[in-house]
Amino acid sequence: MRDLFQQELREVQDQLVSIAELVASSITDAVEAFNKSDVTLAESVIARDNQIDDAVVQLDEQAITILARQSPVAKDLRIVVSALRISSSLERMGDMAEHLAQLARYRFPEKVVPKTIRPTFKEMGSLDIGMANMLVELLRNGDTDLAQKIRDEDDKVDALHLSVFETVLSDTWSQETETTVDATLASRYLERFADHAVSIAKKMVYLATGEWNPQTGAIQL
Amino acid sequence: MRDLFQQELREVQDQLVSIAELVASSITDAVEAFNKSDVTLAESVIARDNQIDDAVVQLDEQAITILARQSPVAKDLRIVVSALRISSSLERMGDMAEHLAQLARYRFPEKVVPKTIRPTFKEMGSLDIGMANMLVELLRNGDTDLAQKIRDEDDKVDALHLSVFETVLSDTWSQETETTVDATLASRYLERFADHAVSIAKKMVYLATGEWNPQTGAIQL
Repeated sequence: MRDLFQQELREVQDQLVSIAELVASSITDAVEAFNKSDVTLAESVIARDNQIDDAVVQLDEQAITILARQSPVAKDLRIVVSALRISSSLERMGDMAEHLAQLARYRFPEKVVPKTIRPTFKEMGSLDIGMANMLVELLRNGDTDLAQKIRDEDDKVDALHLSVFETVLSDTWSQETETTVDATLASRYLERFADHAVSIAKKMVYLATGEWNPQTGAIQL
Repeated sequence: MRDLFQQELREVQDQLVSIAELVASSITDAVEAFNKSDVTLAESVIARDNQIDDAVVQLDEQAITILARQSPVAKDLRIVVSALRISSSLERMGDMAEHLAQLARYRFPEKVVPKTIRPTFKEMGSLDIGMANMLVELLRNGDTDLAQKIRDEDDKVDALHLSVFETVLSDTWSQETETTVDATLASRYLERFADHAVSIAKKMVYLATGEWNPQTGAIQL
């Protein structure tokens, strides 16, 4: 019985890693679709989002079954509840990648943002991809040093997000309104993607240490 | 023991209602602050968000304690897990209200959006307030007819959200870039607020009926 339980817990963790891998693929493809105006890639991201959503539903069902059948306590309970919370953040990260891909598809064959600001978006995109890959590792091996790295990367994303607004609001910006709207939304999607990564990283630290600092965010578990 | 458990469950439900009331107050004040450019009201919304976040952390701790001590199954388990999910959506609804208030404060003494588009925002705001109030009732009395009403209201919010983009992208729009950015973000916050309300409504239907349709959204529990 105990062995079965531990195996079920491992399966939940494996599933989280699988979903994180799907999300990492999605953001990688979405960023490339966005940067290069690749509509085929954009469509593959949009299609993959259903797969992510289905995997999240499946994981949630499994986690709830474990709660019902095994009545875990202490650390085991923390793992199951955290899995439910982490899957929810991963699902949102998938949505952000999808939104980015939708912008790329909608604007095709044009690029979404103009040349001057493209390097900023490229950098934000790379940071998001890097964070998604670190998240896969963090979920796989629980190395909490990665959690701190993810937070550091998020600071960079936030700074770039602000710089997008500075550029858009500067006197030199002479773009169509549509471009302003799209740049605003794209930047917000990239920034929110990073926020969710941090939120998961915090939950993993909590899982590893049992400690959290309520000042740094509302829901830590 | 059993009585204590039922009392604990009721406390969790009461806490959800309290948080939903805080969120309803926040969106009511945020919409008014936004419409009337009332900086004092905007600041009260921003201050209230900490209160919402703290209440969410407290509720989550209580729900997890119940899972650990009482090992609920079946419907009771569904209630506790749903409470964790609902609190997370309420927390995000509070964030959306705060973001709207921040826009109002930032633009003070100016209004955030120009006269022509203000009626649209007013209507979206009213719909969001109505949805928040229905949510309080739904959480209080479990009347699932309200869930359907909330979904209907969300369709209206989505249509208005699209109409904001149509206006902003029309030839008659001749606003500063800053106004375009703010209108884009404000509309997105109001639309996301409504989405979270629907997400909670679906969870309440699931709680009442034990049924869900995975086609209508990723995480239904």
